[in-house]
Amino acid sequence: MTIDIAVERFHSAHQLLGRHLRPSPLIELDRVASVAGHAIMVKAECLQPTGSFKVRGALHVLGGLSQDERRRGVIAYSTGNHAQAVAMAARRFGTSAVIVMSPDAPKPKIKTTRDLGAEILMAEPSSAARRTLAEQIAHERGLKLVPPFDDADVITGQGTIAVELTQQIADAAAVLVPIGGGGLISGIAAALKQLKPAIRILGVEPELENDAAQSFRAGQLVALPGPSASSADAIKVQKLGDLTFPLIQRHVDDVVTVTEEQIAHAMRVALASGRLWLEPAGAVALAAALAFGGLADRRAPLVAIGSGGNVDLARAHALIQAASQGD
Amino acid sequence: MTIDIAVERFHSAHQLLGRHLRPSPLIELDRVASVAGHAIMVKAECLQPTGSFKVRGALHVLGGLSQDERRRGVIAYSTGNHAQAVAMAARRFGTSAVIVMSPDAPKPKIKTTRDLGAEILMAEPSSAARRTLAEQIAHERGLKLVPPFDDADVITGQGTIAVELTQQIADAAAVLVPIGGGGLISGIAAALKQLKPAIRILGVEPELENDAAQSFRAGQLVALPGPSASSADAIKVQKLGDLTFPLIQRHVDDVVTVTEEQIAHAMRVALASGRLWLEPAGAVALAAALAFGGLADRRAPLVAIGSGGNVDLARAHALIQAASQGD
Repeated sequence: MTIDIAVERFHSAHQLLGRHLRPSPLIELDRVASVAGHAIMVKAECLQPTGSFKVRGALHVLGGLSQDERRRGVIAYSTGNHAQAVAMAARRFGTSAVIVMSPDAPKPKIKTTRDLGAEILMAEPSSAARRTLAEQIAHERGLKLVPPFDDADVITGQGTIAVELTQQIADAAAVLVPIGGGGLISGIAAALKQLKPAIRILGVEPELENDAAQSFRAGQLVALPGPSASSADAIKVQKLGDLTFPLIQRHVDDVVTVTEEQIAHAMRVALASGRLWLEPAGAVALAAALAFGGLADRRAPLVAIGSGGNVDLARAHALIQAASQGD
Repeated sequence: MTIDIAVERFHSAHQLLGRHLRPSPLIELDRVASVAGHAIMVKAECLQPTGSFKVRGALHVLGGLSQDERRRGVIAYSTGNHAQAVAMAARRFGTSAVIVMSPDAPKPKIKTTRDLGAEILMAEPSSAARRTLAEQIAHERGLKLVPPFDDADVITGQGTIAVELTQQIADAAAVLVPIGGGGLISGIAAALKQLKPAIRILGVEPELENDAAQSFRAGQLVALPGPSASSADAIKVQKLGDLTFPLIQRHVDDVVTVTEEQIAHAMRVALASGRLWLEPAGAVALAAALAFGGLADRRAPLVAIGSGGNVDLARAHALIQAASQGD
């Protein structure tokens, strides 16, 4: 299934979101500015309300509901960040939200979703199980389903990051983007290749959760059998979407993977050199920027999308300490 | 000694800094938005290059050096944040920096200052001792002294925060500002009372380091005998300046204090509700915003200046854990 999203749609989504969100800051890291001569910048989506880029897609979808849809309410399934975003957007637009999560989601994400007023239902810990339950409840109760990534309006919302970025910076050698279900990168890539086609776009996945890298190489959708042991809970999605995969094939230049140690190292560098608090999934793109030399042939900055910051202090400290043993 | 800083000077400093810095983001905290009905926003100076607001004053002073001064180099004395800022500004403007610090400064701050190319000299751990040594070396080597706070150009640089703030937000009930030597608050207050006189300005100090609160009450400068045990290393200055104190008396509405537990609690809230990494000194203003109810008679937001984020993970975790025992 192949869709095209015209640049005008990204611009109008960007305008709608401008009524609810400030542009996320673009933070240049100090001291590590010498990775193969590139300055490294983090687009700090971790500083969005509810702590991730997911508010973009959620606000874009909920802002476009009909009166009838708004009256009935919405439903979503999520590992946590989309959950919080949909709950927050539902509150903002005066509708109700049901969220299907799994018991292995980080506790603070479950708690925040509940605190935001959403009704929470639990499914088995796989994206397929969460999706099946959500579709069933949506059907039974007549709720509008807000998919986590495989939806043109969600993808368009996430792609507003590219519009913002081109207003913040004149050029970049490459933009590095985490991949879970692919909504974030397919939105950014579809927009950026229309706005600034010379900028390379690289997808980044944990090595342990490498279905997108496999799919990209194979030229067809590859699914992992179940969630991996990766710390990057927010992007533990076992398969790209039917809409996102073709967009990635068409607009993304390459997909690379990073180790758990590289992810934890990137969390530490973000903190020490940028005072930025990234969760593991939010640090994978920075990990790739720090790890790889010849990502681009130009000396312009590398921009890593810092997609989220929802990790509690004790867990982040443990991850970073474990990865620092050898330092 | 009483000085006046015309609003035009803040505007032109703001213009100069705009060539070197992006506006620091204003982050609204989620979930704690209900403190006596006020939204709480943090002006995230922790996200500045070198991790604190100090780059403003340093860039403002170094950007105004004569050719001869630039050729000779500059000197500064600091607990750490001013050190890093002057070292970074010196590198930016192609001059050299000598920095007088004390052995009790946090190690990462000493290391970063050295990594930025500054020559470091050590003095006894009191602001008076650091100042005496710096003045002596400045005289001996013919270096331009960049004072940490008691200087009209430094104060003007820090006051650019107020100009930025009025461009980011239409109104605030109160702006809460940490006090060390008083450069930050006297700049913000002198500018803001010209730009938006209805906004209350509250200074905040650790209870353990309450010389400004004592001075404000007494109507005359009170000095503490030596540095306290407060965790807020960046504002452990035992006495306000001859320039900053009169500005505080004239423009600041009140000075309040917070406990060490309240500071650590605010660090935790900044992280959990705003994904913001604040050092203890950077969290005192938020601590006051969270602790006090009737700060203002209007329902507009409370803005806390998150002045810095230079604290390492292990230390922050220990401080927050210790303060959370009773939760």
